Amino acid sequence: MGVGLGYLLAKTDIISTSDHSSVVSINLFIVLLCTCIVIGHLLEENRWMNESITALAIGLCTGIVILLISGGKSSHLLVFSEDLFFIYLLPPIIFNAGFQVKKKQFFSQLHDYHAVRCYWHSDIFCYYILRCYELLQEHEYCNWSDLFSDRFCLHLADTSAVQFSFGEGVVNDATSVVLFNAIQRFDLSHINSSILLQFVGNFLYLFFASTVLGVVAGLLSAYVIKKLYFGRHSTDREVALMMLMAYLSYMLAELFYLSAILTVFFCGIVMSHYTWHNVTESSRVTAKHAFATLSFVCEIFIFLYVGMDAMDIEKWRFVSDSPGTSIRVSSILMGLVLVGRAAFVFPLSFLSNLTKKSPYERIGIKQQVTVWWAGLMRGAVSMALAYNKFTRAGHTKLRGNAIMITSTITVVLFSTVVFGLMTKPLCHFYPNGHDSEPDLASYSVPRPTSLRTLLSTPSHTVHYYWRKFDNAFMRPVFGGRGFVPFVAGSPIEQSVHQLQ
Amino acid sequence: MGVGLGYLLAKTDIISTSDHSSVVSINLFIVLLCTCIVIGHLLEENRWMNESITALAIGLCTGIVILLISGGKSSHLLVFSEDLFFIYLLPPIIFNAGFQVKKKQFFSQLHDYHAVRCYWHSDIFCYYILRCYELLQEHEYCNWSDLFSDRFCLHLADTSAVQFSFGEGVVNDATSVVLFNAIQRFDLSHINSSILLQFVGNFLYLFFASTVLGVVAGLLSAYVIKKLYFGRHSTDREVALMMLMAYLSYMLAELFYLSAILTVFFCGIVMSHYTWHNVTESSRVTAKHAFATLSFVCEIFIFLYVGMDAMDIEKWRFVSDSPGTSIRVSSILMGLVLVGRAAFVFPLSFLSNLTKKSPYERIGIKQQVTVWWAGLMRGAVSMALAYNKFTRAGHTKLRGNAIMITSTITVVLFSTVVFGLMTKPLCHFYPNGHDSEPDLASYSVPRPTSLRTLLSTPSHTVHYYWRKFDNAFMRPVFGGRGFVPFVAGSPIEQSVHQLQ
Repeated sequence: MGVGLGYLLAKTDIISTSDHSSVVSINLFIVLLCTCIVIGHLLEENRWMNESITALAIGLCTGIVILLISGGKSSHLLVFSEDLFFIYLLPPIIFNAGFQVKKKQFFSQLHDYHAVRCYWHSDIFCYYILRCYELLQEHEYCNWSDLFSDRFCLHLADTSAVQFSFGEGVVNDATSVVLFNAIQRFDLSHINSSILLQFVGNFLYLFFASTVLGVVAGLLSAYVIKKLYFGRHSTDREVALMMLMAYLSYMLAELFYLSAILTVFFCGIVMSHYTWHNVTESSRVTAKHAFATLSFVCEIFIFLYVGMDAMDIEKWRFVSDSPGTSIRVSSILMGLVLVGRAAFVFPLSFLSNLTKKSPYERIGIKQQVTVWWAGLMRGAVSMALAYNKFTRAGHTKLRGNAIMITSTITVVLFSTVVFGLMTKPLCHFYPNGHDSEPDLASYSVPRPTSLRTLLSTPSHTVHYYWRKFDNAFMRPVFGGRGFVPFVAGSPIEQSVHQLQ
Repeated sequence: MGVGLGYLLAKTDIISTSDHSSVVSINLFIVLLCTCIVIGHLLEENRWMNESITALAIGLCTGIVILLISGGKSSHLLVFSEDLFFIYLLPPIIFNAGFQVKKKQFFSQLHDYHAVRCYWHSDIFCYYILRCYELLQEHEYCNWSDLFSDRFCLHLADTSAVQFSFGEGVVNDATSVVLFNAIQRFDLSHINSSILLQFVGNFLYLFFASTVLGVVAGLLSAYVIKKLYFGRHSTDREVALMMLMAYLSYMLAELFYLSAILTVFFCGIVMSHYTWHNVTESSRVTAKHAFATLSFVCEIFIFLYVGMDAMDIEKWRFVSDSPGTSIRVSSILMGLVLVGRAAFVFPLSFLSNLTKKSPYERIGIKQQVTVWWAGLMRGAVSMALAYNKFTRAGHTKLRGNAIMITSTITVVLFSTVVFGLMTKPLCHFYPNGHDSEPDLASYSVPRPTSLRTLLSTPSHTVHYYWRKFDNAFMRPVFGGRGFVPFVAGSPIEQSVHQLQ
């Protein structure tokens, strides 16, 4: 991670450790991060709280304190930097989302609270923000041209990328296509066919190029590690190579103007499917937890920042001029999130249920509600995308932009606190995991057998052929579970005892 | 690590991912890092090469290529940034040095090549550089005043800090005192008693305050993790807290103008002695390897940079004006490194041998030579300190400074390549580990029994009382090996299988 930094920092020539106020800020921020972790741990048993709400609350309190100390001038320990989010904070979060995706048990593990947590990443919110922005611009600025720029396509691709966290393993392709269709329907009246074609072409190019890049990077790391068998010499080398290759895929996507988020997400999936099985046991443990830890810290960091930013006077000043618009935009966003989430979860669950033969495998209505509800919480990625779209280095002088930011903050705060507070009780209320059979029978929709067969057959066939192809061609080359030579003597035991 | 960055980056307002040339640089640098790791792995079996030489060589080649492409203008992918080294690259290296220090088996494990590697960190080179700088200034600039500034004391404390990697567990206090005495002897004719007292006071204050801060941070993390028993909920939280606390200790030391290197080094030692034993098994594996990996990548990063920097035209231009001075300074540095290292290794080994009863425990002359030799290689930390002292953002316009940098590069290149190439054959030549008994008898110096008793008794007594105190008071409070409740069912097994 320090790589990019070097160049970026160096270019400025004005930054120095001797700048004491920045050292104070860094210290304070680390203390806040530690506090969030400790308080989040203490409140783990609490049925209302979670780490994000804690971080938000601490961020808010800190913002108020800083506001008071600075005499209302600032509520920030740090100013938003696009690079901070897109070069340092987002890659670990998205990569980890891909890396930890449970490919097989995705739906069967809904009872797992951690699985519910990971739905946060399915940030279709970004899309709604952009939609609202368009509506806003229609009324006030009419700056349509840049909406069909590459940047917009990037956002769209990124959006469908994170959608994959939800759809992965069940209906992955469908999601992005649906999303794409949706956006086409909305804008159809405003654009002509050539722009439409260009848009479609752009989207497809970005989508496939990014995916391929991520997959290639993942496969390359798997191949290199399998061929060279790094573990023979050092666990550190394996983990370092995995991290660097993942980050490289992200930066390469940036280099080729692709969707870096999509790339690193697929790189994570491929790495967890192949590379992760090729390394030694201690590397596996290290990689799994190191990636998760990085992602965890980055998320808390963003929530802390959002909490502090919610106290920023500058942006709320615009809002106080036109409270009506602000409330309207926030409500629209909130409604879109509720409806949009439902539009994905329930139909997709229905489709997924059609492919399942046994009633035990099906997603009950309670589970669907849980998935829908838990996904309503907007978080780190939404804020990052909103800041990226609507600010320059955390500041904005445009009224429309300020309102978008404050509305995003409102929705994030509201959804995280209100919906977030309800999620744990909801999970408790809907008993652990699978609905019991009678529940399923009473809640689940009737399934026409013919449609079920129609839908389940291709799905099973595709999966069957993929497994066959994977076992026959991919795994022998790139490794994966069961395709790596077994090493006698657990390296974990050795490495654990080595330090003792 | 992203914390500091946020503020630092944000302050500049001019950095953006849209800056395509920086993205290219980052990509190229990551590719080079990966290449170093792969080539270093392939050459592991080779008896002449190691990872640092590989990184240096690749850096040199890249420097030449960039030089040719840019038409002789630049040989850098990135410009040196003081903050890059002192906020991001050094903390992981020093913390890991402290964390991985084998407290008990330090001398008995000399046969381990990895143990030999860690002596690189014992960078007394910094001291010699400063001495030479003084000599240079006597002749040309006579800018004495700032040598007794706080910054100089910091360097001195840092120097003795890294000395600890060598002296740890045997003669730790002595090293820094000896170093301190040495510097006093040199400068005695130039300074009066009040400056001397101030210097002594400063040094002692820095030394003890930094140590105490590091120990307190380490103990705090141990206490918090033991009391709250984090593992109950999440491995990620434990690892995140360890990382953040370690980094916090470093930044707090910066905040209080202490020696951050000393602080984080002791924090690492305390964490490996207490905190590391309080976490779950998967956290142990993750912490151990994640810290080692970070340190590993940072070191390669620095070596790559040094390799590229060696091709920097700007600095060598000054040298070509006065090749005599440059050669003289390089030779003096090289000689001082040889003599200075010997002045520590042989007397200290002698003293250490006096305290050992069994001839098997003693350090044979061959082992001493290996330690002396392996420690001659100057590396990452030397370069970082030299850049920090003699440049502003990687550039210098002063002749004296440029010569110091080029001389440092010369010594680093020479020592790493020449001495480095010889280290593996040396390790092979002196058979694995302990000298055999006849060897010992023939080589080891005669030991007067009375002196041995005199020296060994207090050493053993101190260690005995420390162990007693540790077991009676420290471990029950802060945890540590054997003082943490045993958890049935290895969490490693669980976490390994979870992802499969």
